[in-house]
Amino acid sequence: SEEFSFVDHSHRRFNPLTNSWVLCSPHRAKRPWLGQVEDAAVEQRPSYDPKCYLCPGNTRATGAKNDSYASTYVFENDYAAVHAAQPDCSTTALAQVAGKGASAELFQVESMRGQCKVVCFSPRHDLTLPELSFEEIGKVINAWQKLYRDMSETPGIGYVQLFENKGAMMGCSNPHPHGQLWALSDVPSEPAKEISSLKSFHAEHASDACSCLLCSYAAAEQKNSETEATNRVVFQNDSFMALVPFWAVWPFETMIVSKQHVKSVADLDSKQVLDLAEAMQNLTARYDNLFQCSFPYSMGLHQAPTETHEDAEFCHLHLHFYPPLLRSATVRKFLVGFEMMAEPQRDLTAEQAAARLRALSSVHYKVAAK
Amino acid sequence: SEEFSFVDHSHRRFNPLTNSWVLCSPHRAKRPWLGQVEDAAVEQRPSYDPKCYLCPGNTRATGAKNDSYASTYVFENDYAAVHAAQPDCSTTALAQVAGKGASAELFQVESMRGQCKVVCFSPRHDLTLPELSFEEIGKVINAWQKLYRDMSETPGIGYVQLFENKGAMMGCSNPHPHGQLWALSDVPSEPAKEISSLKSFHAEHASDACSCLLCSYAAAEQKNSETEATNRVVFQNDSFMALVPFWAVWPFETMIVSKQHVKSVADLDSKQVLDLAEAMQNLTARYDNLFQCSFPYSMGLHQAPTETHEDAEFCHLHLHFYPPLLRSATVRKFLVGFEMMAEPQRDLTAEQAAARLRALSSVHYKVAAK
Ligand SMILES: O=P(O)(O)O[C@H]1O[C@H](CO)[C@@H](O)[C@H](O)[C@H]1O
Ligand SMILES: O=P(O)(O)O[C@H]1O[C@H](CO)[C@@H](O)[C@H](O)[C@H]1O
Repeated sequence: SEEFSFVDHSHRRFNPLTNSWVLCSPHRAKRPWLGQVEDAAVEQRPSYDPKCYLCPGNTRATGAKNDSYASTYVFENDYAAVHAAQPDCSTTALAQVAGKGASAELFQVESMRGQCKVVCFSPRHDLTLPELSFEEIGKVINAWQKLYRDMSETPGIGYVQLFENKGAMMGCSNPHPHGQLWALSDVPSEPAKEISSLKSFHAEHASDACSCLLCSYAAAEQKNSETEATNRVVFQNDSFMALVPFWAVWPFETMIVSKQHVKSVADLDSKQVLDLAEAMQNLTARYDNLFQCSFPYSMGLHQAPTETHEDAEFCHLHLHFYPPLLRSATVRKFLVGFEMMAEPQRDLTAEQAAARLRALSSVHYKVAAK
Repeated sequence: SEEFSFVDHSHRRFNPLTNSWVLCSPHRAKRPWLGQVEDAAVEQRPSYDPKCYLCPGNTRATGAKNDSYASTYVFENDYAAVHAAQPDCSTTALAQVAGKGASAELFQVESMRGQCKVVCFSPRHDLTLPELSFEEIGKVINAWQKLYRDMSETPGIGYVQLFENKGAMMGCSNPHPHGQLWALSDVPSEPAKEISSLKSFHAEHASDACSCLLCSYAAAEQKNSETEATNRVVFQNDSFMALVPFWAVWPFETMIVSKQHVKSVADLDSKQVLDLAEAMQNLTARYDNLFQCSFPYSMGLHQAPTETHEDAEFCHLHLHFYPPLLRSATVRKFLVGFEMMAEPQRDLTAEQAAARLRALSSVHYKVAAK
């Protein structure tokens, strides 16, 4: 009788971090694509753009003026999604939209306070993360460390989300290399799910040598990387591993995970900071090389909500990269219809994606062309 | 002291169906949009396109020939994500990708069988749902009923997902009006979450007059629709209500919910079928009228997994519409960075979205222009 094959047969894989499934249909990569093609990004930009609201010394729409910064630069988001001070949502206020006598179960609301900041990665308008040096990326990580520590000490802040949207396809409205910080009064849904899984795993493995889900997973993938068919690792150094998770959703989704149990970016020493910078540089250079374009993605850090959060010790620093491209610089994966209504679905397997990223040079194609 | 206001202050709302939160930042609708604008869809299409693989009588890429159909037409998807027959995933097979001695917790896989079908809504290449008559939409619903019943009786099928991707922006590769069916051996993540919530609600309200979450919610919104500030209903008739859920994520997300406790589309009588057709027509015409364009969305039915599923009685038929447009025919909402890493975020409130849809005519702008 026929044997089950991971490259021919549909299957679902389980994500133990978020407690969810992904449907994998590897044979489906063969179907022709007749749908929307994206605009290829314009690749030539000046190193300084007088109209860019992120370039050094420029004036923003609100009238504020950027410093003439030379490395990284952090400022308050002019269109913040949350504000530091606002009233609580009272029962009276709730009744105004939920209706009088509304069921408390069906109409639940919480006031959400916080701060939003913009983190410019470089004064250079024409560069992106993979084109920066390790040292320059190290400075970005140092800025994250400072922000995370400052926010952790700010009263009313319960969670700090650091992330980057890269490329117009990912809703990024300015190509100047930058990320964001959204710090909130409460822990949002995704990290809350992860923390809950990390805590359950810890409780179930309390008497084992390793009780951290991500320490165990990193160790398993380290071992698996010795055999080609089970190798999901794209790059590793002493401190970090960049891999395609077994349960990846996006075609070339990756995770950079700390090999040591590190709670947050603030706990990284200077060697670990440079190792993370190297992993980020290596991975994003391969991304750009895959389709010879500036590879769009959303990237974010998951770590302890704040330094003193009661669940901080269970948390394990990792970065998620969610890139939409599937076949070329202009053909993306759509997570729509079935994916929205039922379950995320992917075509190529995690192993296939990892092998393709591994086969690429980590020298950026623009550097190689020089 | 300042009072909390739903149109000025950030808050999160809880979705009791999926047990998740959405961050709402109403003041943020004011920020200028400098990012990607989408291509406006080409609106003029011939009523028959000899190159379309969905038009009546045409030959598909695989060589199969479509019937010369006159109303709706169902056929097997030539590039199905799942197949009816394939082997189980054995431990030996799993070891080939997960690695030997891999933790059963961290590397979980299930074989996934099923069937994928395409449902053409009309022979006319140039029409979309809101441009069909109630009777024609009724035929689409009749086709869904038959498919759902047939699949329910098919051995090995445990769940039936009916959905439509409309518009290139939503990954739809052919503008010919059509939807899809993906029937699977197991219940996928999203409906599984909903069923779990419906069951919990039932258990907690077993001694109440109403123990169905969606019956209670529909009744509450019916009452709320009497006051402008709490009115989230866009349209209603005897059998269905089209509303912007209190916890909507997408800017103009809506749900069409049955007012009676109906398990599945198969349980609708002929009057309810026409009422559903009317609700679908009315809602999608308003969608097109909002930005005077063919409004893209993903739409899908949530109902009992199959007719005889053990949890069928807890299920309550409803349709979700997830449309991406935010400000115009070419400016969409991106659920990226923060949304992917932390929590879905929206700008305008559910109440504001409902008021805008309500204010529009339900006569399609193309019909009105004639
Ligand atoms: O099956 P289609 O229309 O070719 O493809 C579309 O719908 C599918 C089901 O929602 C998605 O998996 C694809 O990403 C999307 O492009
Ligand atoms: O804040 P920006 O860059 O203007 O906006 C972008 O990132 C935000 C946070 O992920 C999203 O909410 C927006 O939809 C997206 O366009």
